[in-house]
Amino acid sequence: MSSLSLGEISKKIDATLIGDEDLLVKGIRESKSCKKEYICFVKDKKFLSSLSRSSGAVILEESLAHKIDFDTNLLIHSNPYLAYANLTEVFVKKYDDHNEGIESKIGQNVNVGKHSSIGKNCIISDNVTIKDNVSIYPGTHIGPNVVIHSGSVLGSDGFGFVPTDNGWQKIFHLGGLVIEDNCEIGANCTIDRGALGNTVLHQNVKLDNAVHLAHNVTIGENTAIAAQTAIAGSVSVGKNCRISGHVGITDHLEIGDDVTLLAKSLVTTSILKPGTYSSFYPTQEHKKALKLFAKIKNEK
Amino acid sequence: MSSLSLGEISKKIDATLIGDEDLLVKGIRESKSCKKEYICFVKDKKFLSSLSRSSGAVILEESLAHKIDFDTNLLIHSNPYLAYANLTEVFVKKYDDHNEGIESKIGQNVNVGKHSSIGKNCIISDNVTIKDNVSIYPGTHIGPNVVIHSGSVLGSDGFGFVPTDNGWQKIFHLGGLVIEDNCEIGANCTIDRGALGNTVLHQNVKLDNAVHLAHNVTIGENTAIAAQTAIAGSVSVGKNCRISGHVGITDHLEIGDDVTLLAKSLVTTSILKPGTYSSFYPTQEHKKALKLFAKIKNEK
Amino acid sequence: MSSLSLGEISKKIDATLIGDEDLLVKGIRESKSCKKEYICFVKDKKFLSSLSRSSGAVILEESLAHKIDFDTNLLIHSNPYLAYANLTEVFVKKYDDHNEGIESKIGQNVNVGKHSSIGKNCIISDNVTIKDNVSIYPGTHIGPNVVIHSGSVLGSDGFGFVPTDNGWQKIFHLGGLVIEDNCEIGANCTIDRGALGNTVLHQNVKLDNAVHLAHNVTIGENTAIAAQTAIAGSVSVGKNCRISGHVGITDHLEIGDDVTLLAKSLVTTSILKPGTYSSFYPTQEHKKALKLFAKIKNEK
Repeated sequence: MSSLSLGEISKKIDATLIGDEDLLVKGIRESKSCKKEYICFVKDKKFLSSLSRSSGAVILEESLAHKIDFDTNLLIHSNPYLAYANLTEVFVKKYDDHNEGIESKIGQNVNVGKHSSIGKNCIISDNVTIKDNVSIYPGTHIGPNVVIHSGSVLGSDGFGFVPTDNGWQKIFHLGGLVIEDNCEIGANCTIDRGALGNTVLHQNVKLDNAVHLAHNVTIGENTAIAAQTAIAGSVSVGKNCRISGHVGITDHLEIGDDVTLLAKSLVTTSILKPGTYSSFYPTQEHKKALKLFAKIKNEK
Repeated sequence: MSSLSLGEISKKIDATLIGDEDLLVKGIRESKSCKKEYICFVKDKKFLSSLSRSSGAVILEESLAHKIDFDTNLLIHSNPYLAYANLTEVFVKKYDDHNEGIESKIGQNVNVGKHSSIGKNCIISDNVTIKDNVSIYPGTHIGPNVVIHSGSVLGSDGFGFVPTDNGWQKIFHLGGLVIEDNCEIGANCTIDRGALGNTVLHQNVKLDNAVHLAHNVTIGENTAIAAQTAIAGSVSVGKNCRISGHVGITDHLEIGDDVTLLAKSLVTTSILKPGTYSSFYPTQEHKKALKLFAKIKNEK
Repeated sequence: MSSLSLGEISKKIDATLIGDEDLLVKGIRESKSCKKEYICFVKDKKFLSSLSRSSGAVILEESLAHKIDFDTNLLIHSNPYLAYANLTEVFVKKYDDHNEGIESKIGQNVNVGKHSSIGKNCIISDNVTIKDNVSIYPGTHIGPNVVIHSGSVLGSDGFGFVPTDNGWQKIFHLGGLVIEDNCEIGANCTIDRGALGNTVLHQNVKLDNAVHLAHNVTIGENTAIAAQTAIAGSVSVGKNCRISGHVGITDHLEIGDDVTLLAKSLVTTSILKPGTYSSFYPTQEHKKALKLFAKIKNEK
């Protein structure tokens, strides 16, 4: 992908540049791991502490500019998150314009079913089995011995939109999806690619049918996840976890190693201690269920 | 679609006609908006008050016939809902017999992925992107700049069956699906077409992956819905709502504008007041969860 | 499929054979219905009471060997469940090696949509409609007048893995999927085939969109199941049940006839008595929901 100068970028995203307008950057990176030839953004002040000191340029609010105590270039914008969203559109379009997609690299003994599609820039390793009607978006990397069941969609856009006065501005997802060795993905799963970094399934992860993993989720090795569980954006799940069906985990949480989540658990805070967890609220006769809920609600 | 006389219809659905047996009707309409050349049905007496006074013919129970105080034709049946279901089968078959499906109208700059299908009588507007393995049923209208991700199914039959002594009688769905400008539909979503009227997504609606919208749902503009949420038949959701993942909304409810529903909310009554709502019952250690449930259940 | 001798089998699964090393067996059966030419396994002692006395051979723990009071052959293994999993791999590979898949038998007036696939050894009966992008795995039997909506996956592998010191050992699923007359399957459903026996949908079962049925589930006639409900492995559901959306039923339970389960029910024990059941915990203003949960949690 060809580069853009900070001068061009400041115009495209309507930001004020303090720094070198001729500096060329290759793309966007997460703020904690940004390099010299890349640009990142500081959504709000809590991201300042982990900001990479080798960032080539930083998009941020004017009020935070004086907090930057290292040598970099600043792009001042009243809404850095929106500026970032607009910049993803610039970079995804440049990518399309240059048509730099290269043919995917398919390994030995790969079995691709009927009506399955593999986008550009993918790596499909040896001994991978892809059943029928699977859709693999560009930039997905699949390790050896992985099995993908029918109807699954791998590497689709994450669900990211920034509210504006004119509706939603889409955040184009520039990251990828990495599925390591010996994973098995059930039927009709949906796994999004990352926004900037990757969504990652480590070795030996097993997904049942219709599991949803959002952008930038990481699943540790040997973890198994049952049907219709949904894990929101940027959640990190540890190793050897067992996650039952219909579990929901809200965004940006951390689930440690050796955690078991029983069916229909609603996880809204990180769980770092190994053990078995649930939102146990089982079925009973509906008349009794109505009375029970009335009782617990009225006892204030 | 060619017309049927009320005489023919009365025989096909085994109803008693009070009125003009030669009157030709073109199809079935919802009772509140039925026109002269159409027929509607009154499921029970609560639908009487909103019944269109220009209905060409009305299927209803004998006991309600004397309540009709305007000039129309009556089809008396002991089970109007079953008579309606049988009539949908008549009209859907006439449609098939005449093979009146016309080729879909595809706009400029429409990008259709691999292994995607578009049924007859569809309108796909300019600048629409349809990814791979998407299934679009006949009669779906998609506005400009819409993006449909892989594996989604648009315009499939609603889930409607009437119990009879011989099992279920299917309600054939004669309505359509309308997706307005700038909507984005995630991967593996399922959106049913309407029974008589349409299922409608207004402008700028954004759906995450694996969202289910049943027949005759309406979603207001700028509303965003996260993964694996299911909205049952004839629900109306307002503008600028934010609906999290794994939310369930039961049928025929109204959700007003500016409503936020948090993850796993179970909505069983209409919500008209803007604000943030939830069925908050989060995960804890399973031993504690068991004790908690035992406690709230036994304190009667 | 050709046979294997017990001598060969004992080597492949690393078991100690007590019995006839030359006896040929054709495959694996469930312990309750195992026949002379087949082998079964006893996962733990509670399966002993229902073990078929005509089993050709039984895999079991050494400590249970003395409990076998009929004439059979024993394969002693410290982890019979793992030995079984390894044996499924032997038989599925033999199957593949011999390439015994036969072309599927397609009935009269079968309508197969675009980009749908039908594996080998299937039976598709008369008047079946298969919409677009449907994936049917080998060995699926579909009865007359069945409708399968787009994106559904039928007969995929059940979710079965045995933990080992080296990660998960897959249980290859050797059973099938049987869908009887007049069933209708919504869009993007996932129905797994059985481990040894079959997954079965009896006559007139109706599934909404995105329903998940795991391996060896049985659904009784006339039962209807709404969207995004997930039923775990080996659950038996009776006749004339009505199961709403987002219901979860955990594995190996029995649901009797005429049971209604309301939306989002979590079923963790068998329900044998007809009636209406729920896990009713509906949405309220989030501030109130937080207070309510804090209250019920702290009153210990």
